[in-house]
Amino acid sequence: MPIITLLTDYGFRDHYVGELKGVIQTIAPEVTIVDITHDIEPFNLRQAAFVLQRIWARFPLRTVHCAVVDPGVGSDRRIILGQYAGRFVVAPDNGLVTWVHREYAAEAMVVVEDRRYFLPQISSTFHGRDIMAPVAAHLAKGVQPRAFGRVTECFEILPIPPRAEATDGGWLGCVIYSDRFGNMVTNIREAQLHTSHGTPPPGEVIVDGTRIGPIRSAFCDVPAGAMLAFIGGSGLLEIAVNQGSATQRYASVEQVRVEVR
Amino acid sequence: MPIITLLTDYGFRDHYVGELKGVIQTIAPEVTIVDITHDIEPFNLRQAAFVLQRIWARFPLRTVHCAVVDPGVGSDRRIILGQYAGRFVVAPDNGLVTWVHREYAAEAMVVVEDRRYFLPQISSTFHGRDIMAPVAAHLAKGVQPRAFGRVTECFEILPIPPRAEATDGGWLGCVIYSDRFGNMVTNIREAQLHTSHGTPPPGEVIVDGTRIGPIRSAFCDVPAGAMLAFIGGSGLLEIAVNQGSATQRYASVEQVRVEVR
Amino acid sequence: MPIITLLTDYGFRDHYVGELKGVIQTIAPEVTIVDITHDIEPFNLRQAAFVLQRIWARFPLRTVHCAVVDPGVGSDRRIILGQYAGRFVVAPDNGLVTWVHREYAAEAMVVVEDRRYFLPQISSTFHGRDIMAPVAAHLAKGVQPRAFGRVTECFEILPIPPRAEATDGGWLGCVIYSDRFGNMVTNIREAQLHTSHGTPPPGEVIVDGTRIGPIRSAFCDVPAGAMLAFIGGSGLLEIAVNQGSATQRYASVEQVRVEVR
Repeated sequence: MPIITLLTDYGFRDHYVGELKGVIQTIAPEVTIVDITHDIEPFNLRQAAFVLQRIWARFPLRTVHCAVVDPGVGSDRRIILGQYAGRFVVAPDNGLVTWVHREYAAEAMVVVEDRRYFLPQISSTFHGRDIMAPVAAHLAKGVQPRAFGRVTECFEILPIPPRAEATDGGWLGCVIYSDRFGNMVTNIREAQLHTSHGTPPPGEVIVDGTRIGPIRSAFCDVPAGAMLAFIGGSGLLEIAVNQGSATQRYASVEQVRVEVR
Repeated sequence: MPIITLLTDYGFRDHYVGELKGVIQTIAPEVTIVDITHDIEPFNLRQAAFVLQRIWARFPLRTVHCAVVDPGVGSDRRIILGQYAGRFVVAPDNGLVTWVHREYAAEAMVVVEDRRYFLPQISSTFHGRDIMAPVAAHLAKGVQPRAFGRVTECFEILPIPPRAEATDGGWLGCVIYSDRFGNMVTNIREAQLHTSHGTPPPGEVIVDGTRIGPIRSAFCDVPAGAMLAFIGGSGLLEIAVNQGSATQRYASVEQVRVEVR
Repeated sequence: MPIITLLTDYGFRDHYVGELKGVIQTIAPEVTIVDITHDIEPFNLRQAAFVLQRIWARFPLRTVHCAVVDPGVGSDRRIILGQYAGRFVVAPDNGLVTWVHREYAAEAMVVVEDRRYFLPQISSTFHGRDIMAPVAAHLAKGVQPRAFGRVTECFEILPIPPRAEATDGGWLGCVIYSDRFGNMVTNIREAQLHTSHGTPPPGEVIVDGTRIGPIRSAFCDVPAGAMLAFIGGSGLLEIAVNQGSATQRYASVEQVRVEVR
């Protein structure tokens, strides 16, 4: 019983998600459909690409991740089928695989072209329903990746920040994602900080030039309203406010510089 | 393994949706429950009726669509079970079937009355849980539609706009639905425009007296912020703004007149 | 095929819910995962505890309710596994079981400690993914509750309002929950009002000193915009506004006093 996950910016108030699910259930009644989210900010590829990477390998081998954030629908942008770490993605070729591609070695990358696996009628604006959902369903049923089209080496990658860089006695990084709680996830990795698992790594954290103290192990290590740094569930350094929002304190989260010394 | 879809205005923050799912899982553990949406604007029958039609036939034969937007709960409004195109709906008799009824021939319409298929206790305000969910579950398990009550020919239909009308050299229509992206779906059908599939039909589009150009095939055919018309995923003419919202430009979307010449 | 329900404040826009689902699907591919809600207000234990109780026994025996609202994550707060009425909960020991505990007799209460049932790596801030989801999955697969840790008699209970109290000729209560529609659920039970099922109990309802009339059986018994009292789907007296919101009329819902005379 394979799994198809859905990750879209379709929202939950319209009929779009329901149509995707109906198409999948009709082609592959035995699959399990798992909603990751449909609340990606419309057309926010960077947000979607990060979420895709975070959930990627939490699912069993052979899971098909169907990721549809598609500002270029109807243009000549391609649709791709990628395989990384034994899981698949079906998505527009617009950079949605960026974080997955940085994290795992590509095992296959195919341009989806064989119309036998599409719906009979293709609209110009709803390729999620007409192409990506049916391709994901056929893939989950066991059709081989290369049956969908030709192999490619060339596909879109978003200009995401590089890995945090070593400084004189520390690391300098930036914010790569903000979550619903207002926590800011940085590109400084726990592994870079030479920590032993279970205790927070040593070091003073500086956010945009302001010292916010050592790396903490829990929110309750600082008073309510105080800023703190901690190693988050993604293994990355995060900046947060206990019982508050860190993102609200900065005009432009993308500009925030985070240092560990 | 039959499917029950859920389409409600219950929202996702309370216990209502969870209670529906629990009732269904208890009666029919083998069904697959699919969330269509729970974010219908409270009591917005027109929105729900349109969404129901859009997802109707995307699901396999014998799917049970359980649609609960029920401003008249506790009054003497009836609950109905309809069959169209081999799928079923269980809903209050308040017009939720309007768009489905316009699109497909009714194969059966029954007034749900047999209390053997309800929960033992019926509240006055939560018939979704106490009547519609258990009826949907029994229906999915194979109980015949006519076992639930008597056949009726008489049920509520909402006053939705008629089909777009032919004008001297074109079509005049109106907006029947607005989606999360701010796209306005009109009642002008692709089929009315004598197009060949795959290319946008010819014609100049006028929205409330302002020309917005020919029918496009993709958002990127116009600059960011510009208005465009295209044939949407529902096979209907839609009015949108590239990387923006069309609905925000009109005080009353229901009053907007759309012409194709 | 056991069921695991998810009740969290993780929201639906990030990767957190997807990670939980992936962990569960990997450990227990045969379970059915049911979303109750992920839109609990961040850290609102009272809201989550009430929702948990409402959906508790709607699900089949042996259902595992995984409830993750966890402001103390990373502190020394414990994680507990409770059994009530043949269903299970896995949750932080922070009072989430409060309403369930008031309603049902505890059949087992265990402190979750055996790391064999956790993920190999435990983050300091995402115990939902690293501990509670895998424990719920192993429990659903049939691991006995006591295998997870030692039995305890001592766990957190929230200071929720007591049952409504008898007055000279009636009942005095307060608001214990407000829903998305703006309905205010009180702690006055239908059973206290000596009603016969199917007809609203007699009595005059007074909200913060203002008479709002007898207990009604349906919203349409009062004009649009008028306040009414009725017995809600939870068997509790609720205060609502027909086609409007009751909560919006009060500065502090927790302070509202409701009487039935």
